[in-house]
Amino acid sequence: MKGIYFNGKKALYREDLPRPISGERESLVRILMAAVCNTDKEILRGYRPDFQGIMGHEFAGVVEESPDSSLVGRQVVGELNASCGKCIYCRTGRPTHCSSRRVLGMHQKDGCFGEYMTIDTSLLHVIPQGLSLEKAIYTEPLAAAFEIMTQVSLGDKNVAVLGDGRLAYCVVQAMRAVGKRVTVIGKHPEKLELLAPFADTTLEREKEGYEIVVEATGSPSGIRQALELVRKKGTIVLKSTYAGEVSLPFSQIAVNEITIAGSRCGPFGPALEALASGRAQFPEITLFPLEEYEAAFAFKGFKAGFSLGH
Amino acid sequence: MKGIYFNGKKALYREDLPRPISGERESLVRILMAAVCNTDKEILRGYRPDFQGIMGHEFAGVVEESPDSSLVGRQVVGELNASCGKCIYCRTGRPTHCSSRRVLGMHQKDGCFGEYMTIDTSLLHVIPQGLSLEKAIYTEPLAAAFEIMTQVSLGDKNVAVLGDGRLAYCVVQAMRAVGKRVTVIGKHPEKLELLAPFADTTLEREKEGYEIVVEATGSPSGIRQALELVRKKGTIVLKSTYAGEVSLPFSQIAVNEITIAGSRCGPFGPALEALASGRAQFPEITLFPLEEYEAAFAFKGFKAGFSLGH
Repeated sequence: MKGIYFNGKKALYREDLPRPISGERESLVRILMAAVCNTDKEILRGYRPDFQGIMGHEFAGVVEESPDSSLVGRQVVGELNASCGKCIYCRTGRPTHCSSRRVLGMHQKDGCFGEYMTIDTSLLHVIPQGLSLEKAIYTEPLAAAFEIMTQVSLGDKNVAVLGDGRLAYCVVQAMRAVGKRVTVIGKHPEKLELLAPFADTTLEREKEGYEIVVEATGSPSGIRQALELVRKKGTIVLKSTYAGEVSLPFSQIAVNEITIAGSRCGPFGPALEALASGRAQFPEITLFPLEEYEAAFAFKGFKAGFSLGH
Repeated sequence: MKGIYFNGKKALYREDLPRPISGERESLVRILMAAVCNTDKEILRGYRPDFQGIMGHEFAGVVEESPDSSLVGRQVVGELNASCGKCIYCRTGRPTHCSSRRVLGMHQKDGCFGEYMTIDTSLLHVIPQGLSLEKAIYTEPLAAAFEIMTQVSLGDKNVAVLGDGRLAYCVVQAMRAVGKRVTVIGKHPEKLELLAPFADTTLEREKEGYEIVVEATGSPSGIRQALELVRKKGTIVLKSTYAGEVSLPFSQIAVNEITIAGSRCGPFGPALEALASGRAQFPEITLFPLEEYEAAFAFKGFKAGFSLGH
């Protein structure tokens, strides 16, 4: 079958990949659409030195084989972390943090930039009737933004989102879906314009700071800026991931009683609901054939993806 | 009057200090006992370059003059942050974080290493009948440990306290007072021995990590060690303060969804209760006359303080 294969150094388009065979508890999914995430580009830059295999973890597809016969023929999206069910994290309700987890297109598991993929059946979510693939494809990054609501009580606190890229966009949409209007502090007027229908946008900070600052810049400098924006006894939600270390004045965190909450993958249910109801809205994905993966990876618009024969 | 005065460079014993005059809403307190905190030593090392004045913020005394006549003649301890009542933090229930706060012996306010001190009357707490000065003198550092309970839900989570010094000791006593048995991970067998009656003590970590790690080492290296000890989705409570910056792999915090909660001054009420009931126990303070302040600052035992004419 066709697919984009990472050989440990670079991505290759191949047509000789074997169609995967489902393991126990797995389903076989024919991929209809896949999307490029920043993490995929980080992998090309060496973020996951141990990984070799088919790339990609954001997808929408149709189930062709499954131990759950009710799923066969249904359109689905899926979570990316396959858990062991046995470790301390699986035993205590944190399967996305499983000690020996396999991660689609990242760690010990082939991803979705191919014609077929196998995946733990428990990770699949049926796409609601009427939700297009073009919208459903945003489920995974939107779910990651919904993770914030499982960690922080928003109440009537003022919330700033730091950054104006795709990560910030997802956070704004998740916040909007739960009825929370936020302030986006960005650097790029053209990106802020895209967010303006959904949030207050600004190039400058509010003088008295914010109770909650969501750091979604994707840059190592974001956390220090967040520390300047957050009120004492306030919370910084850390969404950006990047290689390397960041230096910070930790005494300031203790003395000002700042809370920093790391935040990653989130619940698919509320994300699918928000997309289906229109409470979360996204620009249209720009689709490429698999063969043009280099153009997809280099794409500068909002979101690039692959269309696979539908 | 006599007092220990910091002139911006070093501490001096002086006998020519004027007796302070209470401002509006302030009480005049005759100091009976004062204790040396690590922060006092940090001030000698340049931690508060703007401060000049009488040092010290841990005290027990007797009220000589007060707008609240019921306090006159009573033995008291007191909080260290005087707030403005007007700023965003005072208006939203966070007076210890007041934007223009004055801090006893640290910032724009003379402290307690002298015969008399003035203090905002609202900061005073009466020492319960039967609680000795030698025990009451631990109220402020114990209150800071009780702050953790206002920030983190302990439940049945396993808790590690990292460090075996006085800061860790206070945390152990506060945890014990609320019925929580913790594991102390230290480096000094003789200090761990002092903690052994109140906690599980060890030189080594539990293999599966801890849900909550209280970083109380007082050292910049503590936070990195805490990051190794804490479970994914767990919480690090940051108690140590020190000058300078610390470098950390922030992606690890995001990916493992670690929460870091800075923690500082806490509620005096539960601390006084725990001391009065015996649920919190401390070694006896070693007292020096004010003149021997250099010996008090250099003292290597558990806690040094000053006895002032009682």
